[in-house]
Amino acid sequence: MKTIKRFLEPTPIQYLGKLSGGQKLFIKRDDLLGFCFGGNKCRIGAAFLEDMEKLGADFMVSYGSRSSNLNRVVSALCRSQNIPCRILSSEEKGERDGFNAAMISQMGIERMPCSKEKVADTVSHTLQSLREQGFHPYYIYGNMYGKGNEAAARTAYRKAYREILDWQEQNQISFDAIFLASGTGMTQGGLLAGKWENGGREKIIGISVARDLESGVAGVRRYAGEGREDICFETEYRCGGYGKYDEEIEAGIRQMMEDNGIALDPIYTGKAYTGMLRWLKKQGEGMEHVLFLHTGGLPLYFDYLNSKVKEVRQ
Amino acid sequence: MKTIKRFLEPTPIQYLGKLSGGQKLFIKRDDLLGFCFGGNKCRIGAAFLEDMEKLGADFMVSYGSRSSNLNRVVSALCRSQNIPCRILSSEEKGERDGFNAAMISQMGIERMPCSKEKVADTVSHTLQSLREQGFHPYYIYGNMYGKGNEAAARTAYRKAYREILDWQEQNQISFDAIFLASGTGMTQGGLLAGKWENGGREKIIGISVARDLESGVAGVRRYAGEGREDICFETEYRCGGYGKYDEEIEAGIRQMMEDNGIALDPIYTGKAYTGMLRWLKKQGEGMEHVLFLHTGGLPLYFDYLNSKVKEVRQ
Repeated sequence: MKTIKRFLEPTPIQYLGKLSGGQKLFIKRDDLLGFCFGGNKCRIGAAFLEDMEKLGADFMVSYGSRSSNLNRVVSALCRSQNIPCRILSSEEKGERDGFNAAMISQMGIERMPCSKEKVADTVSHTLQSLREQGFHPYYIYGNMYGKGNEAAARTAYRKAYREILDWQEQNQISFDAIFLASGTGMTQGGLLAGKWENGGREKIIGISVARDLESGVAGVRRYAGEGREDICFETEYRCGGYGKYDEEIEAGIRQMMEDNGIALDPIYTGKAYTGMLRWLKKQGEGMEHVLFLHTGGLPLYFDYLNSKVKEVRQ
Repeated sequence: MKTIKRFLEPTPIQYLGKLSGGQKLFIKRDDLLGFCFGGNKCRIGAAFLEDMEKLGADFMVSYGSRSSNLNRVVSALCRSQNIPCRILSSEEKGERDGFNAAMISQMGIERMPCSKEKVADTVSHTLQSLREQGFHPYYIYGNMYGKGNEAAARTAYRKAYREILDWQEQNQISFDAIFLASGTGMTQGGLLAGKWENGGREKIIGISVARDLESGVAGVRRYAGEGREDICFETEYRCGGYGKYDEEIEAGIRQMMEDNGIALDPIYTGKAYTGMLRWLKKQGEGMEHVLFLHTGGLPLYFDYLNSKVKEVRQ
């Protein structure tokens, strides 16, 4: 099996500047992971593929929204390893394919629509049918209810936390907080596991891109594993729900590109970045160094740009 | 002035696999330079901005095709440094904006159409009018005929060559050849300058994306500076000219994404990559290690994907 490790070299942490509240802002560039447009899902997808290999499974089944970064990266990883793969895609009526979905199709990966209400049934049916065909399928979230693979997912950002810690030690800088876009909780949970393991002291603050407090915290807790600390999962900046965004988020995206040449998207990173700025204005006093984890999703920036170009043309 | 150096950290060199002719293929990931979607134009644009600062100029004028990566990066660099900027854009009738042009517009940078036949006049007129307004304009190519800034451009890939050499020394691997997409000659010329300076021995082979032999070699020679060596500028793989591509190039793009999760585009890197493979089949016997320099241009991959999605919808 060709190694996929070469794409997981430590990513840079860069200084972006001082915020109006005086905090020095840094960014960890997981958007620069060098496989299929990078992002946190490179690390997480690679962890799943390793788990899958360990279990001797031979067919990947993944699930996510139509704009899922995970589905794109998992498809590309499976393609590169010659592992057959099926994507279950929760699609709303009237939605059009964005670039993540288009790339999956371009790679010739099978994509099956799957309504959000019937995920467990669809997964169960898919796995059964694959088993009947002689495969040993691997469902990325574990069992038909999406549970069981937390430990595999956790390893990805538990290791990435170690990178952040090493950087802090080398540069004699202590982050007061690490902010990130938080959805299912895989990334935030992994970071927390790494923090607990290494005795870290910074707050790890997830900005919810969709979930409410209860299900959000439960997700992070599940992926973090054992630990006594409260989960910081901020639900105030969701802007009406998954995929929704407003002028403030758009201004944040524009600003980041114009100041630093870094692309954010309105669904995940742009929402989290803007949420972080608002959070810091309200309760960031006394913080000196904060880190924003850029979790990638570059194809979504181009979806966004497509929508802006269409606005102009109309 | 905010530093732009943080975006120019050495980029990884990765092993991709063995070609059918037995050569081991490596890739240098300048597509991962962390400013505005990376690419060779990050290094080159930064070199121009440094030169501009040294000269005390305060207004950037750039020129290129509508899909120019240089224009995108220079616009973003100027934006990030608060340097006013005007883009002269050679546009064919009926062309639509791709993502490079769209990003320039999104950043609020002024874009002026400029026919290829009237570049010198337009440049001269633009510079004069800016001077009358009290600016000290900097034309990215030098004088109105596009000459004079070769030394500034050269520094970018002269330095990048040093990175490649360091990597070879550290890894005890000698490249027999470095292949790259070659247009104006800035990148190939810089690499050659670095090679001569350091006593390098590999061939540096430019795959022409547009120019014929005479003007191509003249361009590379100009940017390389003094040196006795013949210029390797291969014009056989142009596929009919700038921006044109065929099924073989498309297959190369697909293969690279499916094998390695690396995006190529049909105008520059995909054409150069496919050209390299054909070159190696014909005359690569005896070569053991070859390096492909990925010169970036990720927005053009998404333009290409847009065109594929539209094909499907029709």
